[in-house]
Amino acid sequence: MSDTIFSRIIRGEIPCHRVYEDAHMLAFMDINPIARGHTLVIPKQPAPTLDALSDDAAAAVGRVLPRLCRAVIQATGARSYNILQNNGAAAHQAVFHVHFHIIPRYAGDGPGSGLGIVWPATRPEAGEIAELAMQIAAAI
Amino acid sequence: MSDTIFSRIIRGEIPCHRVYEDAHMLAFMDINPIARGHTLVIPKQPAPTLDALSDDAAAAVGRVLPRLCRAVIQATGARSYNILQNNGAAAHQAVFHVHFHIIPRYAGDGPGSGLGIVWPATRPEAGEIAELAMQIAAAI
Repeated sequence: MSDTIFSRIIRGEIPCHRVYEDAHMLAFMDINPIARGHTLVIPKQPAPTLDALSDDAAAAVGRVLPRLCRAVIQATGARSYNILQNNGAAAHQAVFHVHFHIIPRYAGDGPGSGLGIVWPATRPEAGEIAELAMQIAAAI
Repeated sequence: MSDTIFSRIIRGEIPCHRVYEDAHMLAFMDINPIARGHTLVIPKQPAPTLDALSDDAAAAVGRVLPRLCRAVIQATGARSYNILQNNGAAAHQAVFHVHFHIIPRYAGDGPGSGLGIVWPATRPEAGEIAELAMQIAAAI
């Protein structure tokens, strides 16, 4: 397991702007926010990607997310927001310790205005989707 | 609470390509995938946005996400993937029932190649971030 800037933050070796902490997780401000109130939520378990995180650690993060979202909404006044969690360099992951972004979305565009999403939707044949569903179900 | 296409899928009134189901949640294929293997994970509780979801329902979704990610990776061969959960029309939410996207990311670009991310990072003053952290922490 590689050491990352986030494990150093968890150990208190690097400071952070903390908003929440419990036995399982830590939430703190992104210091290069893409929107005002951009918050990071990390499990203390040092898993690089979500598929490597324990069920219990993932449940602990899930349980606290609604509460953190409500707090970000209340403090920022944002009405919309995105939750984003990237896995792998090709998927825009930069720090290899699982982290969920809470990114407020405000009206208007331009720098600092939140997550820009490009959505290249496709329309595959139903049979192709059905086959993939069976393969994924079989892998669970 | 508004009725959505997802509550109709949960009730079995509309078919889906199901990959996983338990008492708390359902996972099925997105029929307009932005990448091969694009999967949706939804709580059965009909909350429109994550801040309105119960702690227990959110924990149940969190707990099963690593397992579903592993199955999507195994079935598709994708090495990278994004988890995205949108809240509010301004944040790209289209169906007002909480849903997490699992979006595989393959090498290369173009239609159907996965989530496109635009990241307008900013560098605010530390004092500004510290003040916001205190406001969010106080709202928890």
